[in-house]
Amino acid sequence: MINLIKEILTFEPDGREIAVYGWVRTKRETKNLIFLQVNDGSCFGSIQITFDRERGISAETEAELKRISTGASVCAKGKLVPSPASGQAAEVQAESILVFGEAPVDSYPLQKKNHSFEFLREIAHLRARTNTFGAVARMRNQMSFAVHSFFQEHGFQYVHTPIITGSDCEGAGEMFHVTTLNIQEIVQKALKEKTNPETFAVDYTQDFFGKEANLTVSGQLELETYATALSRVYTFGPTFRAENSNTTRHLSEFWMIEPEMSFFHLEQTMDLAEQFVVHLLKWALEKCREDLAFFDSRIKNGLIDMLTKVVTTPFTRITYTEAVALLEKNKSAFEFTPYWGCDLQTEHERYLTETVFKGPVIVTDYPKEIKAFYMKMNEDGKTVRAMDVLVPYLGEIIGGSEREDNYAALEKRINELGLAKENYWWYLDLRKYGTVPHSGFGLGFDRLLLYVTGMGNIRDVIPFPRAAKLADF
Amino acid sequence: MINLIKEILTFEPDGREIAVYGWVRTKRETKNLIFLQVNDGSCFGSIQITFDRERGISAETEAELKRISTGASVCAKGKLVPSPASGQAAEVQAESILVFGEAPVDSYPLQKKNHSFEFLREIAHLRARTNTFGAVARMRNQMSFAVHSFFQEHGFQYVHTPIITGSDCEGAGEMFHVTTLNIQEIVQKALKEKTNPETFAVDYTQDFFGKEANLTVSGQLELETYATALSRVYTFGPTFRAENSNTTRHLSEFWMIEPEMSFFHLEQTMDLAEQFVVHLLKWALEKCREDLAFFDSRIKNGLIDMLTKVVTTPFTRITYTEAVALLEKNKSAFEFTPYWGCDLQTEHERYLTETVFKGPVIVTDYPKEIKAFYMKMNEDGKTVRAMDVLVPYLGEIIGGSEREDNYAALEKRINELGLAKENYWWYLDLRKYGTVPHSGFGLGFDRLLLYVTGMGNIRDVIPFPRAAKLADF
Repeated sequence: MINLIKEILTFEPDGREIAVYGWVRTKRETKNLIFLQVNDGSCFGSIQITFDRERGISAETEAELKRISTGASVCAKGKLVPSPASGQAAEVQAESILVFGEAPVDSYPLQKKNHSFEFLREIAHLRARTNTFGAVARMRNQMSFAVHSFFQEHGFQYVHTPIITGSDCEGAGEMFHVTTLNIQEIVQKALKEKTNPETFAVDYTQDFFGKEANLTVSGQLELETYATALSRVYTFGPTFRAENSNTTRHLSEFWMIEPEMSFFHLEQTMDLAEQFVVHLLKWALEKCREDLAFFDSRIKNGLIDMLTKVVTTPFTRITYTEAVALLEKNKSAFEFTPYWGCDLQTEHERYLTETVFKGPVIVTDYPKEIKAFYMKMNEDGKTVRAMDVLVPYLGEIIGGSEREDNYAALEKRINELGLAKENYWWYLDLRKYGTVPHSGFGLGFDRLLLYVTGMGNIRDVIPFPRAAKLADF
Repeated sequence: MINLIKEILTFEPDGREIAVYGWVRTKRETKNLIFLQVNDGSCFGSIQITFDRERGISAETEAELKRISTGASVCAKGKLVPSPASGQAAEVQAESILVFGEAPVDSYPLQKKNHSFEFLREIAHLRARTNTFGAVARMRNQMSFAVHSFFQEHGFQYVHTPIITGSDCEGAGEMFHVTTLNIQEIVQKALKEKTNPETFAVDYTQDFFGKEANLTVSGQLELETYATALSRVYTFGPTFRAENSNTTRHLSEFWMIEPEMSFFHLEQTMDLAEQFVVHLLKWALEKCREDLAFFDSRIKNGLIDMLTKVVTTPFTRITYTEAVALLEKNKSAFEFTPYWGCDLQTEHERYLTETVFKGPVIVTDYPKEIKAFYMKMNEDGKTVRAMDVLVPYLGEIIGGSEREDNYAALEKRINELGLAKENYWWYLDLRKYGTVPHSGFGLGFDRLLLYVTGMGNIRDVIPFPRAAKLADF
């Protein structure tokens, strides 16, 4: 197989013949010397290819070199030798070069100069060719594999929960509808038939699934069905929210990781969540050194120190009630005044991690009113066995809970909240047949990427972001 | 952490104290002895828990035992000892047992007897508790990790291509629309305003994305943008087809694996595809022995031999033209008469692999008319650099090609087929700026699961299948 540049850079520069495939980042020329920096995206670094007219360059090669500018794709052949230049161990003393494709200087958008991230979003099909977005893509890959590796090592089975759901019982925010109905035809037919608007009703039995269907907002409920069969399971897939929030932290399509564990109570779930976060950040620190060094120096100073600190600091565990008491001592520091019963804001979460505990914090036992219906009620009848993992500079990175495993208690909660019980028949069944204590949590993968790269906008850590009015490419 | 049964079964049965968490599969009782088979889904096997009244059983334990029937969830504690029974090395000499939840005999649907797969599809939330569907789930997990492991080892970066696409340029079959438009309100408003049906047009600028959006049918085109930045990339995610085909081999929501490699020509792509298939089947044979043994004995006799043969037989490579010539020699054997220009049917593919070559076959250079617009044209102007990997008993398992990397040739093909060129501006850009020879292929993950498990219906290898009129759970 063709050698990737990341492999070539590990080879002994012993004069061996080598072929380099990639895209030219820069071309420098003196009277007799031509230097190309060639990158193939397999790693952050480029490799230097040198041509020396004193050594001799063929007419064909000279002709090819003329076609080369930033962005051109090439195959260069020559000897891998020690490099006299600083910052690189090896370079290629080129013998020939072939240009696959030019990148015309007058039209190629990615010339050497720095581009704004806003501009690069407009050319998302090319931005992975830049230092920043190449590094984001490699870290996204490493973090994905870190996720799978962790769960495989801990006895979890990966489950593909459905993306299209007809069960409308997740109840978390606005959903996207999935349909094959032809709206245009439906309207025209109704107009032609002069249907009474009061009696008109869309006939979803004619839709593809024979009823209304939506894009999932979470795989959790379906995942619980597998947890009560395979004990430890996880899902890692796309989830969707049709919320019109134009922020740097929300996407309409984002990737979620959700483990679900039978026989785990909240304490064991906190242990697992802590191990998981530490595993992910350690993986980043160990496997993404070069990319992290770039982010640390160019995107967020101190990033490596920040991640290292999280990895080496035990996570503090406090209850929501304790957390609110701590926040109330310092009310004036906050835009949003904290009180028992309020949802913690990012400013509160950051105060707890950065100012009070100087490290990650797990907050437990939230008021039932601000948490989901399926969370297990505490004996006080006011709080639920929920936990949020908060990290410095980001705030919440994980949210989870022990699930209500008692049929009567879950049914009561469904009724209290006015949910349609008939939608939950199968979810309730799990409490009817061999019910078990079980728990789980969710981690937003794109938020994790923001954290480990130090990037400021979530639209810049996913290849093709989707948000309100944004579905290009 | 709690020990999974698959771990416990590897422990030395040295009398150590152990706690077993799981669900009771069977309960047998003699005068003084009670035997429970407990399974937690971590592996195919159950562990035997024995209670001996002569050894003494407490009143609490006796009371708990009375509550136990198939499906009850328990925690049993006792000593791990060598088992006198055949077929198991160890069992637990129980000291106590706690029932988390009963499974009432009169209502629990999964009693010991065999259920039809049709019936189990109706209770998909419980079916993973059966031998068959537990084994399918574990193999699905192992095959997923095998996919990631293969690509990570070969220098590929995992890319999350978008699920919602506004670019409508994949052109492969019927798509699902994604919308937040309220059809009911749109119709009622038009009726009230007595809009002229001839001039009515749905205003998609009011839709969430400001235009029509669909669920992806393939991540390939977007993936190519990353291949031309990172060299080797792959995607593994859900894809969608709104085709109303009620067969045992089609789903509306299915998982696809698509690698894309810059600088790879068709030959290198065939090498990679062959390595990939062999890697996957070897992984199954090595890591899923127990589950495979079950499928071999209960679902498809000879399964293990069949998979072993594929792994050990070099893949034959022939052109489409050669394949058709071979098929034409035996026309009478087929329902669908083969001719040059026809799409190969499963019967043709199986004849080639099972009868002619007795092993996997890669067919290349198909007529351009039956392949996609983006495939690289051969010099004959009639065929394209496509390849399909065929395996015995299944037929096509992989489809791929070298991509057209020449701007003018691709533009010509888009025009010939009457595609809307403006939709492809970014895809064409890849041929304008630093274009490279590149290739890729797709493997339907659920089809792979059918193959490695020997299951007969694709709805039985995905947790919650989606098809026409089917979106339950």
